[in-house]
Amino acid sequence: MTIETVGRQMHALVERLYPLCRSITGDGVRRTLEIVGESVPLRIHEVPTGTEVLDWTVPKEWNIRDAYVKDASGTRVVDFAESNLHVVGYSVPVSAVMSLRELRPHLHTLPEQPDLIPYRTSYYAETWGFCLRESTLAGLPEGDYEVRIDSTLADGHLTYGEHVVPGQVSEEVLVSCHVCHPSLANDNLAGVAVAAELARRLAGTDPYYTYRFLFMPGTIGAITWLARNRERSERVKHGLVLACAGDSGTLTYKRSRRGDAEIDQVVRHVLRTSGREHEIVDFSPYGYDERQFCSPGFDMPVGSLTRTPYAGYPEYHTSADNPDFVSPEAMADTLETCWEITRVLERNRRYVNLSPYGEPQLGRRGLYGSLGGRSDTKQAQMAMLWVLNLSDEEHSLLDIAERSNLPFAAVADAAQALRGAGLLKEKGK
Amino acid sequence: MTIETVGRQMHALVERLYPLCRSITGDGVRRTLEIVGESVPLRIHEVPTGTEVLDWTVPKEWNIRDAYVKDASGTRVVDFAESNLHVVGYSVPVSAVMSLRELRPHLHTLPEQPDLIPYRTSYYAETWGFCLRESTLAGLPEGDYEVRIDSTLADGHLTYGEHVVPGQVSEEVLVSCHVCHPSLANDNLAGVAVAAELARRLAGTDPYYTYRFLFMPGTIGAITWLARNRERSERVKHGLVLACAGDSGTLTYKRSRRGDAEIDQVVRHVLRTSGREHEIVDFSPYGYDERQFCSPGFDMPVGSLTRTPYAGYPEYHTSADNPDFVSPEAMADTLETCWEITRVLERNRRYVNLSPYGEPQLGRRGLYGSLGGRSDTKQAQMAMLWVLNLSDEEHSLLDIAERSNLPFAAVADAAQALRGAGLLKEKGK
Amino acid sequence: MTIETVGRQMHALVERLYPLCRSITGDGVRRTLEIVGESVPLRIHEVPTGTEVLDWTVPKEWNIRDAYVKDASGTRVVDFAESNLHVVGYSVPVSAVMSLRELRPHLHTLPEQPDLIPYRTSYYAETWGFCLRESTLAGLPEGDYEVRIDSTLADGHLTYGEHVVPGQVSEEVLVSCHVCHPSLANDNLAGVAVAAELARRLAGTDPYYTYRFLFMPGTIGAITWLARNRERSERVKHGLVLACAGDSGTLTYKRSRRGDAEIDQVVRHVLRTSGREHEIVDFSPYGYDERQFCSPGFDMPVGSLTRTPYAGYPEYHTSADNPDFVSPEAMADTLETCWEITRVLERNRRYVNLSPYGEPQLGRRGLYGSLGGRSDTKQAQMAMLWVLNLSDEEHSLLDIAERSNLPFAAVADAAQALRGAGLLKEKGK
Repeated sequence: MTIETVGRQMHALVERLYPLCRSITGDGVRRTLEIVGESVPLRIHEVPTGTEVLDWTVPKEWNIRDAYVKDASGTRVVDFAESNLHVVGYSVPVSAVMSLRELRPHLHTLPEQPDLIPYRTSYYAETWGFCLRESTLAGLPEGDYEVRIDSTLADGHLTYGEHVVPGQVSEEVLVSCHVCHPSLANDNLAGVAVAAELARRLAGTDPYYTYRFLFMPGTIGAITWLARNRERSERVKHGLVLACAGDSGTLTYKRSRRGDAEIDQVVRHVLRTSGREHEIVDFSPYGYDERQFCSPGFDMPVGSLTRTPYAGYPEYHTSADNPDFVSPEAMADTLETCWEITRVLERNRRYVNLSPYGEPQLGRRGLYGSLGGRSDTKQAQMAMLWVLNLSDEEHSLLDIAERSNLPFAAVADAAQALRGAGLLKEKGK
Repeated sequence: MTIETVGRQMHALVERLYPLCRSITGDGVRRTLEIVGESVPLRIHEVPTGTEVLDWTVPKEWNIRDAYVKDASGTRVVDFAESNLHVVGYSVPVSAVMSLRELRPHLHTLPEQPDLIPYRTSYYAETWGFCLRESTLAGLPEGDYEVRIDSTLADGHLTYGEHVVPGQVSEEVLVSCHVCHPSLANDNLAGVAVAAELARRLAGTDPYYTYRFLFMPGTIGAITWLARNRERSERVKHGLVLACAGDSGTLTYKRSRRGDAEIDQVVRHVLRTSGREHEIVDFSPYGYDERQFCSPGFDMPVGSLTRTPYAGYPEYHTSADNPDFVSPEAMADTLETCWEITRVLERNRRYVNLSPYGEPQLGRRGLYGSLGGRSDTKQAQMAMLWVLNLSDEEHSLLDIAERSNLPFAAVADAAQALRGAGLLKEKGK
Repeated sequence: MTIETVGRQMHALVERLYPLCRSITGDGVRRTLEIVGESVPLRIHEVPTGTEVLDWTVPKEWNIRDAYVKDASGTRVVDFAESNLHVVGYSVPVSAVMSLRELRPHLHTLPEQPDLIPYRTSYYAETWGFCLRESTLAGLPEGDYEVRIDSTLADGHLTYGEHVVPGQVSEEVLVSCHVCHPSLANDNLAGVAVAAELARRLAGTDPYYTYRFLFMPGTIGAITWLARNRERSERVKHGLVLACAGDSGTLTYKRSRRGDAEIDQVVRHVLRTSGREHEIVDFSPYGYDERQFCSPGFDMPVGSLTRTPYAGYPEYHTSADNPDFVSPEAMADTLETCWEITRVLERNRRYVNLSPYGEPQLGRRGLYGSLGGRSDTKQAQMAMLWVLNLSDEEHSLLDIAERSNLPFAAVADAAQALRGAGLLKEKGK
């Protein structure tokens, strides 16, 4: 299957998931995970309302069936059926007639982007509200309006999905994406689609690491997972939060809190050697669920990969973040980058030169061209010399690739050949 | 009192102190400390001649009443009464008639600045001499001159003054300035005036640190203080040597010998974030009393704040360094900078996040805006997130301000709010 | 003797050694060492074929008397007597008549440099071959050729030479150069000539360090020396591999594997402060015998000094690397650089300030100008202040020179004066 086909499939998934009204709990999340589960089997977790998770409590479950504002003539001037962004997430039920003046504090618009509907939520303060275009609001005459939100906010569950690709070792690579946003395509259906596809591609590869994919509501989902997986979190050797994976901007990697974790080095290497335009930015405690994974108690080696980062584009958190805003090509490019990251992670290890005094005689082991005196040397031979010279427990293969300015794959191949010849062993084994 | 008024007061102090003939000992220093003591109460120390202080010995006390060179007509061609710079500091008494040729080796001029009187001393080699304008010297005819220096060099004392603003803790901030130069305004009456004003301003503030102000003769004064305060010197957590505080040049900070002491970081932060033009230079074992405080045995965290630094302006150590050379505005600017430095020092501490696993739920503590989804975030909220994320014992509030690029005050306010909510405690407490 | 004379002498040595047919073993190496031994006495080591040395085995000894390819008319179209480069090093004997097609795989040319003879060897795979100009090959008609190589490859010895200049301490500076290349001037007769001259110049100086000069075949020679001197190798505190020492390019220093060894710092300092154009490059496990000295088991502090580095010029490993390619001036410049490096190495030590609390009073020890107040300070006085301030066991004199931006010699002289005054002692003594 070509990468173009994969890109189109990911975009089709975005389009299919787009209309669902997701939030941090509720049936929108459940239906989303069902659809994702058609591609990669998910283990679904349902965590009851009221469960204490770290410093937080799992909130009530929210579901919504309909919502509207009707004018005097009975016309829906704001209609949930048109876009689920029209309702403030977690709005409590309301059914009332009120004047525009009374209604006004419950209406949210973007005066600077008058034709877009904003996205707003109020998870932890019980209230209700509507989001609408400033241009719509401007056209509303004084008078009474019928206001109705047919929602429920009640004890229930928080839902998240988990998919594991078992590896040769129990150490894990974590890939996390949030599934709590309603009709917003780049934030984060594109991330969901890329994560699902990456999981599918890894499935057939008997990977070294165990890969854990988390499809969870933002913040409270990550906090819930962390609360229930404190020990497992220590097994996570590398992690990526995937978001904003489909816009036309360049790739942006945000470092882990540590700043020099292996994942930071690997992503930088992949981005730099791939020739892709990209940006690398330092960690900040704002953005997506890296906030939780990189809280000081956990301090996990988790970075965040996006295209245009969090809040960095005018369509962010508006109705303009629709399926047209993301492209098959951009998602395919993000997926390829993730794949290349796993290619380096999988092979990046530390070795010990078993013949460290002088160079071992590669020629008699068939590892070296026998005709001396030629000034051109092959990349494979340079890679062997570098691996031998720096395999002192301190340097990983990626360290060696960076210091030698050789492609990582050439260095990893050299290590494999040297190991085959008995000249190298893996550190600690 | 406006800063303009304070500037004018400091300049008035410079003008009042200017005519006194100071040296490393003697009544000029005593009278200077008396006048400074009118603003800030000083404890005066008198250390007898012959006292051994570190590798040095307190020298004889020097006092001078009059000095001149009279030509054949009885006219004073060089006259101490006109400027105390005319006599080489620590000149032994002399009363003689001699030819110009005999006198010549005792005359010091500045051939390149023919209209300025140089400043010269000879503390540790007993000699005498006069300093005069090259233009004056050029006009002296051959012939006999009456030469008289009415000085005494005899057992006595070395005098210095100390002012302490008591703090909540016994750890100290040291502010030191030299008081041994005769009629030189920038070097160092301006430094004396700024130090006195800073002490006065701190007095009413119940500071965290104890602030110790030293008004001492250069080199031998600092050496004497260190010899008598070896244990106290270990309590000094931060220090500044103030000099050349009133010229029109930009502020210059010279780092402590350590280079990365907290005072170095604080002054750099204040200068950088204040928008002031400034220079930061590395430590060198030359200049003012940072030489002594930063000798390798003490290695105290003491930097030096000047405007144009030591020996960096043509008026340096000449009669052109007079009250016109320093301005109320420049002294006020130096004072403000010192004040801002204390504002950061006072609040810069390390905290420990008591809820380090995931983010604590700020919303339910009233610390966070409850309406999610908005892309603009307030500085105060970012500051709280940064403080929580980096309060792991390793990072000070200033580290956090620098890493987050937030104003120090916002970070310190966030720490205070979080501490109030029970989410933070001070490290080690 | 002027440096110009020395340059001419070194060039004369290159010209004298040039015609000898050296290889990694054999009489060419022996004769070379005999000639070098006329300048500096060498201890000659003969290591038998079959001796196990680290991962290697000393190979059979190779000697050659004659070799040629004759055309149908009996004319030598390729003739060892014209240039020893014409025979692939270590060629086994051959005596046969064969067609050009049969002969072709044994002929090596440089198609891009058709008028140059390449240099080729085959030490560890038994074969034979000829090297010739592409232009010669192009002119050879089809037909039969008489092919003869009158060589022997038989049990014998590997030969290397060693010269020691004894020092005050048993810690060593290693200078190594390879002597295994036949008629190639820059690679490495120039290095041999510079090393010999450096040894001669050091002889009369009663140096602090013991200097060991090694004249050895590349790779197998260094491996043999290391195998026989494992303990001595730990005494080597600094080392230089000398090669390509006579071309017209700028000096190039290749750092040791450690990158921050004292030799790395010293050479950088010398090159930088000498005003010479130069390049400093990072270690790589390719090039000359630094590959062996810097293998991870030994990890010796050995860098490599060349002019144009290994394989960096078109004449490299061709008949164009002849005595005209190297100049007396370039060799003299390399020698001077080596000499300056020894001047810093010899005096670069760590001292401890015995009067570290405050500045010691230099004036009463006659170490300081007594007339204060002058703004100009002498380099010697600044050097004393810097040495006192940084002599805390941590800083070497070279560290002090670099931090103070003073010439190394001024700093070393200051340390000597301070030591004479009892203010300094050598660290650990």
